[in-house]
Amino acid sequence: MHPASQQTRLIALDWGTSSLRAYRLGTGGQTLEMRALPWGVMQLPETVAGAGEKDGFEAAFEQACGDWLQAAPATPVIAAGMVGSRQGWLEAPYLSVPIAVADIGGNLSIVRNRQGQLIHIVPGLIQNVLLPNVMRGEETQVVGVLSALGKQATLQDEILIGLPGTHSKWVQIRRTDAQAELTHFDTFMTGEVFAALCGHTILGRGMQTTENVHASATAFERGLRVPQTAAGRAGVLSTIFSTRTLGLTGELDGTGQREYLSGLLIGHEISALQDLLRQHERQPSRVILVGESALCERYASVLRAYGFARTDVMAQATERGLWQLALTAGLLKTV
Amino acid sequence: MHPASQQTRLIALDWGTSSLRAYRLGTGGQTLEMRALPWGVMQLPETVAGAGEKDGFEAAFEQACGDWLQAAPATPVIAAGMVGSRQGWLEAPYLSVPIAVADIGGNLSIVRNRQGQLIHIVPGLIQNVLLPNVMRGEETQVVGVLSALGKQATLQDEILIGLPGTHSKWVQIRRTDAQAELTHFDTFMTGEVFAALCGHTILGRGMQTTENVHASATAFERGLRVPQTAAGRAGVLSTIFSTRTLGLTGELDGTGQREYLSGLLIGHEISALQDLLRQHERQPSRVILVGESALCERYASVLRAYGFARTDVMAQATERGLWQLALTAGLLKTV
Repeated sequence: MHPASQQTRLIALDWGTSSLRAYRLGTGGQTLEMRALPWGVMQLPETVAGAGEKDGFEAAFEQACGDWLQAAPATPVIAAGMVGSRQGWLEAPYLSVPIAVADIGGNLSIVRNRQGQLIHIVPGLIQNVLLPNVMRGEETQVVGVLSALGKQATLQDEILIGLPGTHSKWVQIRRTDAQAELTHFDTFMTGEVFAALCGHTILGRGMQTTENVHASATAFERGLRVPQTAAGRAGVLSTIFSTRTLGLTGELDGTGQREYLSGLLIGHEISALQDLLRQHERQPSRVILVGESALCERYASVLRAYGFARTDVMAQATERGLWQLALTAGLLKTV
Repeated sequence: MHPASQQTRLIALDWGTSSLRAYRLGTGGQTLEMRALPWGVMQLPETVAGAGEKDGFEAAFEQACGDWLQAAPATPVIAAGMVGSRQGWLEAPYLSVPIAVADIGGNLSIVRNRQGQLIHIVPGLIQNVLLPNVMRGEETQVVGVLSALGKQATLQDEILIGLPGTHSKWVQIRRTDAQAELTHFDTFMTGEVFAALCGHTILGRGMQTTENVHASATAFERGLRVPQTAAGRAGVLSTIFSTRTLGLTGELDGTGQREYLSGLLIGHEISALQDLLRQHERQPSRVILVGESALCERYASVLRAYGFARTDVMAQATERGLWQLALTAGLLKTV
């Protein structure tokens, strides 16, 4: 190993509600080391009685990268996610959408810890329309995707970035020669609704997870088609009941019911997304998915079924995004 | 009190998943006595070890009306609801929709208890289309509604019967001079989804219930309008997230968030129902609601907002229905 390539250039934190990931990044943004800790904003390490309100953050931060900073004291630190929310270490005010993506890195908030270390916190985004939308953390992944795409030829186009998860975000990007603009985004609570329906309604009774991959795929496919039918126009509140009735009529077994419901919900999401894109007169030339790979595969197959052209899955968007934001913010003197 | 009016003509049981109501009905179907017991099909009284599989039903039945039968041994007994399901006392097979409403009473199943008493069980209904629908218990309420309407003048019309609850049912009835036909029905899991979202997703955090009736009504009204807007076309999975973001932007307080979500979900249900009626080329001349009165009021206000003409709330549909079904089945010799 070449010693220079091991030099720490940036400490980048992906700090969400239920977990904290710390990255030690080297020259060019390559990941030298990564740590996953359970210290999300809503579950910080316990500190001694009488400690300050933000002591949990101090302790978690120390565990995440205290030794890295000791070894390389001048290293800049950047953090994205719920750490910048009202319940976080420091509230980093939302920036308004539409926004030029390059402007995000120019608006970091700064908190100083007990050791005097500055931590630069990435702001979330808000679109304050009739039904407001917010994100925290996903803006960093969007920056990461665009940074990776920047090296590719075509620069004038429309891109749709999908971030499936507990709450999935769909982000519309318009690229011109001059800049990339984040014009609009939508949120779907599909993952959380799926979990609540399986765990806390009658639909979950008798559901199973199994290894029968073929039967699962068939049931998933059956579900995802429903929103395209006339019956599907009854909407989610109605169509989900068929998960149970197709069990009663013997058409779906326990595993099938779970997979069917998964396909049905993602199908409703993609069907609605398609409708929204038409409303906005948008035709993305490509779709990029970022997220857990099995979930991205599910979404990619539904996107195909709904006629979306080109879908790619991109890894390491968070690390790339944090690196790019640190660059834009001027935190990296020599790269 | 005139002794003859006190004579027991029918014992009618409304036996659901989580509760059992027993009615002692007199001449003309008037309710002489009613008992509410916690013995639903999924929570029967515990019986001694080694007892038969159906002993819980025997015990609950004895508590509900054993003394009534002792006092009037020849009284017929009828029961509707989940008691006729696969998990019930005896499975009463579903009848297929479309169906002439008068045919339901001709298809009762019979179980005999240990004392030799016959219990006549009302069948549920199934509509076995692409997304099958089922009901058990609501068919009896529909019979009750039509029985009450029968005395009114106009007989040729289309009626929409709404049964809001954990799962709401919307039943389309076409009446001619010859008969009333149940042509179609839909299910919406609105009540159960509302409970799951409030209790088991991020939307419930910070929600409150309060006595500020005016603020509640405003938030409910704001929610119910959403599905009519362009943003509402994003569908339930997306619009529900605004419950949280309108809290973040300070537009809704804890109570408001709960009421807003209630209006939003019922609004999505009624909006979808309207779309389904258009698909079926149906224009009901009136809407009858049956259910818990505060909930019926919520639905009535949303129906008004969506331009439905005449909405009435009808009480005692279950007792009326059980009486009418017993009549049709020939269980009541002299009325």
